[in-house]
Amino acid sequence: MERHFDASLRELKEQLVSMAGLVELAIEAATEALQKRDREKIALVHDIERRVNAAHIAVDNSCVKLLALQQPLAADLRLIVATIKINTDLERMGDQAVNIAHNTERYIQGEPLKPLIDLPRMFDEVRVMVRETLDSFVRTDAALAREVLRRDDIVDGLKNKIFRDVLDHVKARPEHIEQGLNLILVARNLERIGDHATNIAEDVIFAITGEDIRHSARVETIKGALT
Amino acid sequence: MERHFDASLRELKEQLVSMAGLVELAIEAATEALQKRDREKIALVHDIERRVNAAHIAVDNSCVKLLALQQPLAADLRLIVATIKINTDLERMGDQAVNIAHNTERYIQGEPLKPLIDLPRMFDEVRVMVRETLDSFVRTDAALAREVLRRDDIVDGLKNKIFRDVLDHVKARPEHIEQGLNLILVARNLERIGDHATNIAEDVIFAITGEDIRHSARVETIKGALT
Repeated sequence: MERHFDASLRELKEQLVSMAGLVELAIEAATEALQKRDREKIALVHDIERRVNAAHIAVDNSCVKLLALQQPLAADLRLIVATIKINTDLERMGDQAVNIAHNTERYIQGEPLKPLIDLPRMFDEVRVMVRETLDSFVRTDAALAREVLRRDDIVDGLKNKIFRDVLDHVKARPEHIEQGLNLILVARNLERIGDHATNIAEDVIFAITGEDIRHSARVETIKGALT
Repeated sequence: MERHFDASLRELKEQLVSMAGLVELAIEAATEALQKRDREKIALVHDIERRVNAAHIAVDNSCVKLLALQQPLAADLRLIVATIKINTDLERMGDQAVNIAHNTERYIQGEPLKPLIDLPRMFDEVRVMVRETLDSFVRTDAALAREVLRRDDIVDGLKNKIFRDVLDHVKARPEHIEQGLNLILVARNLERIGDHATNIAEDVIFAITGEDIRHSARVETIKGALT
């Protein structure tokens, strides 16, 4: 019985990791679509998102079944509860990749603003953030998850800089306003992907340590009640 | 034992409903801050958000404890899993109220764009959406939850109209670009509150019927596996 449960938990983790891989692909395709003005990548994002949505439902079903049939406790219960939440954040990262694809579709219909400002740097930072978040989950590495939380400040700073730079550009060239807005919206989409990565990192820390670090509150851990 | 569990479930529902009440207050204060250019309402939003964050952690703790100690099945298990998700969406609605407060703070430092375009209408629609979502949860009314899903289209349409109207205005008056961007961002914040209400409505339908209607997929219900 115990062994069967361990196998089920491992399968659940694998299911989530393979979904996360799809989400990473979607983000990569979306950012490449913008950088290379590549419509095929836009189509690819929509394609991947459909698979992410199917995975989202499948992971949720697995979690509810495990809760019902195995009635897990302590660390196992925390892992499943964390998986329910991580699943939601992964699915919404996929939605943001689709939003980037939509904004890109509008952007590449017009003239490019010569430099994409700091967007390529923001792409890179967000991709590292997403990668480290998933690594922290796979390796149950709470220290790496904490690293992600720090990186979110860099991403937020880049977004603010992009906002200012685009506004300055557009004030001098009001005919670029739609294009500028599209880039601002992409920066917002990327910021939100970073926020979801932060949420996942917090859930990873909770799953590993039983410690709830959200809202920077070091509240009483619920570990005691479960073990 | 059974009676004790029913009381715990009722308390959990009450906890969630009182948190939802705080979130509604935060949204109302944020929208009033913009409409009345009222800085005290901005401070109120931040104040309420701190209480929402505390409630967020408390509800999560209650859910994990109930799962661990009561090992619920079927409809009870679905209610607790739905509560974990609704809790997350409520907390993020609170974050969006804070975002509206931030955008308002910048907006009221400048000259008002004479009409707030369709924002007041969008406020009203989003508030009704949030109210109906919570009512559907309290009354376990799946039909009302489905009503919310339809209303989301109206909100999305209003957001698109506000985007276009602001762009037209700002093209004629480029010196208003920062102010216009602030209004566009508020419209986005409201759209996201509507999205969270939609997510909650889907979770309510799942909790009541065991039917997963996300991604418009009528997938195999997991009811059978649990009852």
